[in-house]
Amino acid sequence: MNQAEPSSVKISDVVLRDGHQSLLATRMRTEDMLPICAKLDAIGFHSLEVWGGATFDACVRFLKEDPWERLQSLREALPDTPLQMLLRGQNLLGYRHYADDVVERFVARSADNGIDIFRVFDALNDLRNLETAMKAVKASGKHAQGTICYTVSPVHTREMYVEQAKRLVDMGADSIAIKDMAGLLTPYATGELVEALVEAVEVPIHLHAHATSGLASLSQMKAVEAGCRHIDTCISAFAGGTSHPSTEAMVAAFQDTPYDTGLDLVALKEIGDYFREVRKKYAAFESEYTREDVSVQIWQVPGGMMSNLANQMKEQNALGRIQDVFDEIPKVRADLGYPPLVTPTSQIVGTQAAMNVLTGERYKSITNEVKRYLLGGYGQPPTEVNAEVRRKAIGNESVDDGRPADHIKPEMARLEQEIGDLANSEEDVLTFAMFPDLGREYLQGRRDGTLVAEPIPAAEASGGGRPVSEG
Amino acid sequence: MNQAEPSSVKISDVVLRDGHQSLLATRMRTEDMLPICAKLDAIGFHSLEVWGGATFDACVRFLKEDPWERLQSLREALPDTPLQMLLRGQNLLGYRHYADDVVERFVARSADNGIDIFRVFDALNDLRNLETAMKAVKASGKHAQGTICYTVSPVHTREMYVEQAKRLVDMGADSIAIKDMAGLLTPYATGELVEALVEAVEVPIHLHAHATSGLASLSQMKAVEAGCRHIDTCISAFAGGTSHPSTEAMVAAFQDTPYDTGLDLVALKEIGDYFREVRKKYAAFESEYTREDVSVQIWQVPGGMMSNLANQMKEQNALGRIQDVFDEIPKVRADLGYPPLVTPTSQIVGTQAAMNVLTGERYKSITNEVKRYLLGGYGQPPTEVNAEVRRKAIGNESVDDGRPADHIKPEMARLEQEIGDLANSEEDVLTFAMFPDLGREYLQGRRDGTLVAEPIPAAEASGGGRPVSEG
Ligand SMILES: [Co+2]
Ligand SMILES: [Co+2]
Repeated sequence: MNQAEPSSVKISDVVLRDGHQSLLATRMRTEDMLPICAKLDAIGFHSLEVWGGATFDACVRFLKEDPWERLQSLREALPDTPLQMLLRGQNLLGYRHYADDVVERFVARSADNGIDIFRVFDALNDLRNLETAMKAVKASGKHAQGTICYTVSPVHTREMYVEQAKRLVDMGADSIAIKDMAGLLTPYATGELVEALVEAVEVPIHLHAHATSGLASLSQMKAVEAGCRHIDTCISAFAGGTSHPSTEAMVAAFQDTPYDTGLDLVALKEIGDYFREVRKKYAAFESEYTREDVSVQIWQVPGGMMSNLANQMKEQNALGRIQDVFDEIPKVRADLGYPPLVTPTSQIVGTQAAMNVLTGERYKSITNEVKRYLLGGYGQPPTEVNAEVRRKAIGNESVDDGRPADHIKPEMARLEQEIGDLANSEEDVLTFAMFPDLGREYLQGRRDGTLVAEPIPAAEASGGGRPVSEG
Repeated sequence: MNQAEPSSVKISDVVLRDGHQSLLATRMRTEDMLPICAKLDAIGFHSLEVWGGATFDACVRFLKEDPWERLQSLREALPDTPLQMLLRGQNLLGYRHYADDVVERFVARSADNGIDIFRVFDALNDLRNLETAMKAVKASGKHAQGTICYTVSPVHTREMYVEQAKRLVDMGADSIAIKDMAGLLTPYATGELVEALVEAVEVPIHLHAHATSGLASLSQMKAVEAGCRHIDTCISAFAGGTSHPSTEAMVAAFQDTPYDTGLDLVALKEIGDYFREVRKKYAAFESEYTREDVSVQIWQVPGGMMSNLANQMKEQNALGRIQDVFDEIPKVRADLGYPPLVTPTSQIVGTQAAMNVLTGERYKSITNEVKRYLLGGYGQPPTEVNAEVRRKAIGNESVDDGRPADHIKPEMARLEQEIGDLANSEEDVLTFAMFPDLGREYLQGRRDGTLVAEPIPAAEASGGGRPVSEG
C-alpha cells in the first residue's frame, strides 16, 4: 500500500465500548448511549466501536440488558456509521474455546444485527484461534480486521509481527489492527513497527493504543507519520489513563495538515460535553487504577494486572511480598514462552507468580490453568516454553499442539436443547452459550419478569481500588 | 545553533510552581514540598520551576507564608538543581508597572535567595517591558531566559516570533522560551516555529506548553524533532488538562532514542506517588475548568478566560448571551491590535467584550483598563489598534508610545519609608511593593503573631467552578 503521500486520517471512536470498559467497569447503559447517537452518527467517524469486549458480559451480569437488543438499538440509532465490535477469536465473548459452529453462528448473528467491522484477536496471537471467526466474517460479507496483540519480549520482534500481519492478510483480513492493551507502545517503536507493516501488507493498518502510560497520542502521531491512517480514539470525557487518546485532541492535532481528519471540533465538543455529564452518573465505578501510570513502561506489566495482584496478596496478608511477585512475573512469563499479558494470560501468569512467591519454592504448586496452558489448551505459546517447568506441570501427559477447538464437537444443537424454550431466538441460545449459568439465569429472569439492573452505588463510594480489565 | 543531530532532551519540572498553580489555584504549601525535595534533587532535572507566577501572591494572600522564606527553604532542600522562576517583566509578580529600581532590587534579591534561571515575559511581547529585568538578571550573573508569549492572530507570524527571538538574544537572553499559556500550539505548527527559531538564534529554545487542549505532549515531540532540547513537564500527579504534559510520559517517550533524557522512571514514579497523595489534601481546590478542553482550538480563547466570563455573565443574569460574548471577543481583540490573551489582557479584552454585548452597543461604555491600554499604559500593542475605537476611548488625549515605566520615578526609598519598621529586610519591602494593602497586612500580622493560613476546605466542596488563572 503506497502511503508515502500524507492523506486524511480516519477516526474510530470507542466511547460506547472500550471507553467505559476501561474507565467505568463497562457499566454504561444503553439509555445513556441513545440520546447522543444522532450527533455521533453525524460526525463521519470511520467507525464506532459499540459492542463486544466486556460489554456483552456486563449487560447480562450487571445491567440485565439484552446485549443483542443493545446492538439492534444502536444499529437503528446510528444508520450512517459503520459499527465495530471486538471479538476474542475462538473464545468469542466468553471464557472458553467454542466449537466452530458456535463461532460461525455468533458471527452471523452479530453481522445480521448490525456489526460491520469485526476486530478479531487471540491472546497468544495463535492465528488458528482466529481462523473460524475470520472466515465467518468474510462469509457474512463484513469487514474482517485481523489483530496483532502487541507485547514486548525477546521473541516479539518487528519481523515476527510483520510475519503475523502477512498471515492475517492471507487469512482474508481486510485490515490489520495493532492492539496495545497495556500501553506498552512507545512513539518511536510504533513508528518503526507501522512503517514495517505498511511496507509489508496492502491492507490498512489500524492502531488501538491504550493511554495508560501517557504515550498513546504520541504513538498515534508517529504511526500516522509512518503511514497508518486509522486510529482509535475516545471522546475526551472518556479519554486518557487506561482508556485512549482523546478524539478532540487528535482531530485538532491533525487539523490544517495533510492528515486532517475533516471532523468538526464544535460537534465533537458537544458530544464530549454530553458524555461528561453521563460520566458523573457512574462516579461510583471510577477507580484510582485507571489514571495515567508509567509503571507499564518500567516493568512491562499491565497496570490492571498489578492492581489485581496487589489485591490478591492483600487477601493473603502478604502485601509485603508484592515486589517479589512483580519480580517473579517476567520469569514466569519467560517460562511460559512469553505470552502477551492480556485476559486470560495475565491471570495465568500472575497467579502462578504469586504462588511461586507464597509457597517459597518456584512451581512447588502449579495452577490448573498453567497446566492447561502447557498442555496446549489455549493454543501455541509465542515461543518454546521451559521444558523443566512443563515436565513438573504435566508429567508424562502429551502436549497437544493442535488447534484447541479441534477437539470440540459441534455444540449448537446441544446448547439449543439445554436452554430449551427459555430461548426465543438463536441470539438467546448464543447468550446462554457465552455464560452457561449467568445466561440461563438471565433468560429465566426475563421470562419471570424479575430482571433488575444492579443499582448504581452512590458516588461517595468512588475512588476505590476495584480491579480493572484490559480492553 | 546546530541541532541537526538528535541529542538528549532536558526536562524542567514545574510541579512546585505551575503545576499546582494550574490545577489547585496555587495552593500547595511549602510543608508539602520539602519532604520530597531530596528525591526531586536527585533526579537530574535541567531545572525545577519553584517560584514566581502566582505563588508569591498565594503565599501572602492565602497561605500566610513568607514567599522569600519558601524560596530559601527550597534552595536549601534542592542544592543540586537549578531553580527557576517566572517573572512578569516590569510587573514583576505584582499587578502594575514598577520603577526600574524596584525591578533591579527584586531580581537581585531573588538571585541572592536562590533563583538561577529567570524566565521573563511581557503579556504584550513588548520587549521594552523586559529590558530592565533582563539586565538585572545578567548583572546578578544568572540565566536570563527571554520569553515569547505565543498567540494566534493575523499579525503573529513565524517571522514576527523569529524577529522577537533575535531581539531577545540581542538583549542578552541566554535562552528563549516559547510560552503557550492557553494551549494554542498545535504539533505541526510547533515544529515549524521551533525549526525557524533554532535556525535564527544560537541559544537554546525552551517549550512551555499547557496541555489544555490535549496537544502539548504532541507539540513537545514535534518541537524536539525540530531541534528544541528543553521542555517543561509536570510530574504525572499534577499533569494534564490546564497543566503540562507528564514528566514520566515524556521521559518514557524518548527513552532508548537519541533524545533519551537519561532520567530514572522508577525514581520519577516515586515522586509521582508522593504528589498523588499531596493532591488529595487539596481536593477542595480542584475545578472542572482545569480538565482537558478543546475549546481553545476552536475559538482561540483560553479556557480560564471563558469560564471567568461565564461567571461574570451569570452574575449579570445574562448567561444566555454568553455566546454573543464569545463571538465578540475576537472582534475586540482585533480592535486592540491582537494582544495575546493572558493576564492582564485576557481580562481587558473579556470585560470589554461582555460590556459590548450587555449594553447593546459596541463601545458605548469603555472600561478604564481599555482606556489605559489604548493610551499605551501597558506597552505597545502587537499591531495598529482600531483608530475609531481609540478615538471613542481616549478622545483627544495623546497616546504615549514610550515605555510605561519611563514615567515612574525610583520608588524603593518611598516604599521603604512607607512600610517603615514593619519590614525587617529588603525582601519585606519588596513584598510590600508587590501588594500594598495585602503586603502591609501580612507584615503587620507577622509582627502581631496573628498570621493564620486559610483553612483548607473539606473535600466535599470540590469540583466547583472556581476561576482559573493562566500560568
Ligand atoms: Co482496548
Ligand atoms: Co504556564
